Amino acid sequence: MADKTIPYKIYLSEEDMPKAWYNLRADMKNKPAPLLNPGTGKPLTAEELSPIFCEELVAQELDDTTPFIEIPEEIRNFYKMFRPSPLVRAYCLEEKLGTPAKIYYKFEGNNTSGSHKLNSAIAQAYYAKRQGLKGVTTETGAGQWGTALSMACSYFGLDCKVYMVKVSYEQKPFRREVMRTYGASVVPSPSETTEIGRKILAEFPGTTGSLGCAISEAVEVATKNPGYRYVLGSVLNQVLLHQSVIGLETKTALDKYGIKPDIIIGCAGGGSNLGGLIAPFMGEKLRGEADYRIIAVEPASCPSFTRGTFAYDFCDTGMICPLAKMYTLGSSFIPSANHAGGLRFHGMSSTLSQLYHDGYMEATSVEQTSVFEAAEMFARVEGILPAPESSHAIRAAIDEALKCKETGEEKTIVFGLTGTGYFDLVAYQKFNDGEMSDYIPTDEEIAASVAKLPKVPQ
Amino acid sequence: MADKTIPYKIYLSEEDMPKAWYNLRADMKNKPAPLLNPGTGKPLTAEELSPIFCEELVAQELDDTTPFIEIPEEIRNFYKMFRPSPLVRAYCLEEKLGTPAKIYYKFEGNNTSGSHKLNSAIAQAYYAKRQGLKGVTTETGAGQWGTALSMACSYFGLDCKVYMVKVSYEQKPFRREVMRTYGASVVPSPSETTEIGRKILAEFPGTTGSLGCAISEAVEVATKNPGYRYVLGSVLNQVLLHQSVIGLETKTALDKYGIKPDIIIGCAGGGSNLGGLIAPFMGEKLRGEADYRIIAVEPASCPSFTRGTFAYDFCDTGMICPLAKMYTLGSSFIPSANHAGGLRFHGMSSTLSQLYHDGYMEATSVEQTSVFEAAEMFARVEGILPAPESSHAIRAAIDEALKCKETGEEKTIVFGLTGTGYFDLVAYQKFNDGEMSDYIPTDEEIAASVAKLPKVPQ
Repeated sequence: MADKTIPYKIYLSEEDMPKAWYNLRADMKNKPAPLLNPGTGKPLTAEELSPIFCEELVAQELDDTTPFIEIPEEIRNFYKMFRPSPLVRAYCLEEKLGTPAKIYYKFEGNNTSGSHKLNSAIAQAYYAKRQGLKGVTTETGAGQWGTALSMACSYFGLDCKVYMVKVSYEQKPFRREVMRTYGASVVPSPSETTEIGRKILAEFPGTTGSLGCAISEAVEVATKNPGYRYVLGSVLNQVLLHQSVIGLETKTALDKYGIKPDIIIGCAGGGSNLGGLIAPFMGEKLRGEADYRIIAVEPASCPSFTRGTFAYDFCDTGMICPLAKMYTLGSSFIPSANHAGGLRFHGMSSTLSQLYHDGYMEATSVEQTSVFEAAEMFARVEGILPAPESSHAIRAAIDEALKCKETGEEKTIVFGLTGTGYFDLVAYQKFNDGEMSDYIPTDEEIAASVAKLPKVPQ
Repeated sequence: MADKTIPYKIYLSEEDMPKAWYNLRADMKNKPAPLLNPGTGKPLTAEELSPIFCEELVAQELDDTTPFIEIPEEIRNFYKMFRPSPLVRAYCLEEKLGTPAKIYYKFEGNNTSGSHKLNSAIAQAYYAKRQGLKGVTTETGAGQWGTALSMACSYFGLDCKVYMVKVSYEQKPFRREVMRTYGASVVPSPSETTEIGRKILAEFPGTTGSLGCAISEAVEVATKNPGYRYVLGSVLNQVLLHQSVIGLETKTALDKYGIKPDIIIGCAGGGSNLGGLIAPFMGEKLRGEADYRIIAVEPASCPSFTRGTFAYDFCDTGMICPLAKMYTLGSSFIPSANHAGGLRFHGMSSTLSQLYHDGYMEATSVEQTSVFEAAEMFARVEGILPAPESSHAIRAAIDEALKCKETGEEKTIVFGLTGTGYFDLVAYQKFNDGEMSDYIPTDEEIAASVAKLPKVPQ
């Protein structure tokens, strides 16, 4: 392999780390639609939101005009434990593909939570601590967000109650043990600890739980216990704001070497990573300063962008949370049982939904067997075992690079490698054994859950 | 937290990475004793070793005079995927302990194998490839070494056969799946694929295997199949040579900020990490240029340095491998069943054994419950979930830092954080549930296995 002028990994110095988050909404002409109170159908006020969320986070959620919001020093100090994260030039993948494309990935998995989720978890824990709260509650499915939040709460000495979908609690004992090691209490949901949990258990004694139910339990505990608030790891504007550190660092690293990307690719579930990665680039595009192809990649089994409806919907399956205007498959949509890993949310961040609606970005969907083929190839040549979620972006990046091979174009592709797959080896085993299957929901299935959208003025 | 003049993480540039490994033996007046042929009792020649090991690795094994051995460019390119590794200032741990000591750790877990083992795996795979071999065989217990070797072989397109102790194969399915994802064939040992495996299975039909048996199978396959050689992840001189990248980078990073350590601490099983971390510092000490306290930390349940005998012994439990002069508990010694993680080898690198014998380093042993207490504290404040092996060094570093707290001394402590604990969560669960126990072997137990040392001139 020849000597390279661009290093394999572009590490920034700690001084190069962003001192403020970038609030993409400030540069949007068409702002994302506000959250609605499902009872009144009217935009939620800070007063209505503050029994659920921390005050400062409510302010961030509602602020769509301030372009930069300072990152408090305590958070910046925590970030230094795992940031700046490397921007890696995928020389080995390029060589394997024989492509003239130049591929870079921003690797967010170099921390114990194993993903980018820690960027927002530490911010949310910090504001909870500053407000003098005792603790926070949340739900977790696969466990990535719960792990990140446990780490953040441990750092600030906050109590952390995680409602973990019962089937994951039992099938992913290692995720649970990481959270416990960081001092969190992890409760299998549905549980006897909440009213709604007891109600569901009485009605469905053998249920293995759902994310919707875990959210309901976490929200109930947060609102009924003085000194507690509820926190969420994706979808919300505040989360995208915190995740902008990913994109800001990526841009600084690229600028350092005078590199201008042609294509920026991110996987998309609720939109936390994608929104963070693209933020400063999308900002330039909105301000007319630069142009980029921006591609969201979602699972074919949960295709909210590519096959969903742009409408107000509940954020949770239990239909107790606020209504958000977003691309949605309907809050009763559940991906088929063979779907591995995350990216299983029925909707998409309101901010990203508006941008997609206005034509500022593209979206594509990929099937999981082809995702794991990309994951395996990437692991073998680049050395990192990627999370299934991240591998959606790898798949799309490989496909774009192969197009460049056909056309001879030397495009620069940047994608987000959100995390590692250490806790997803059951899925890898299925792939290794040739037992992984794909599923694409039928039009009828999607129509059935979309038909249940709430009746509010759209 | 106040601003710091030393960054949290000292990252070197790729140009700062070592271009040659440092061969510590070249600076030793008392060279480590040579490997002996167990049949003849005479030093093994290159000719005798080459049917088992690659030629270039045999040369490195026997070379105790060349101080620097160039790292081939292909290996340096692979290193760039996960090196230089960060030297981290443990500000949060210092604050938690309230110690005036300055604590640094060299973190080797930022790669998919999750440990430092990849440093030698890629070198051994490279030399096998250069010799035109088809593949390599090895054994693995917990799976750290097998994972690293699978990654390295995948990179060079070599076949990789891993004999994995059957009980680990069944109890650690995730390690096995990582190896399979990297294309290795993983065989539970004992197996029907070898003569010795069939023999053992006939004799003990229900056996769950042992490292000794897995070594025997791997060596048999390597010597009977043209184009294959056997590779080993610790103990050998060649492995310590490759691992010197750890120490060389550590020294470069410290020198960059004018930091001179007082104490250097590493965990010790076969000695691969410890030997690599201390190499350049021990070199200075041997040449009389500097002085450092160097401390090996081993499990109280497998205390080869602190309670073993300095004598020739077999490297494997099966007594088919060469004899090495080392601190040993006897090749029939097996740590008690409650011992978690690695560091379970009965002996210790000949090089380190000679240095310890000559008074150039200290050794201490720690019990596993106190090791996991240190691991948990470290995880909560520093964010990284450490491997049980690495946590032995954390325990000793914390103990030294607490001594500084008593005396008020501002000592600089450097320790090796060899890897992450993602695959050790069964042990963490035991600790979290208060079910972890300790075991210190009795003098009689150690005497019984030492009594079986081979009868060669010592």
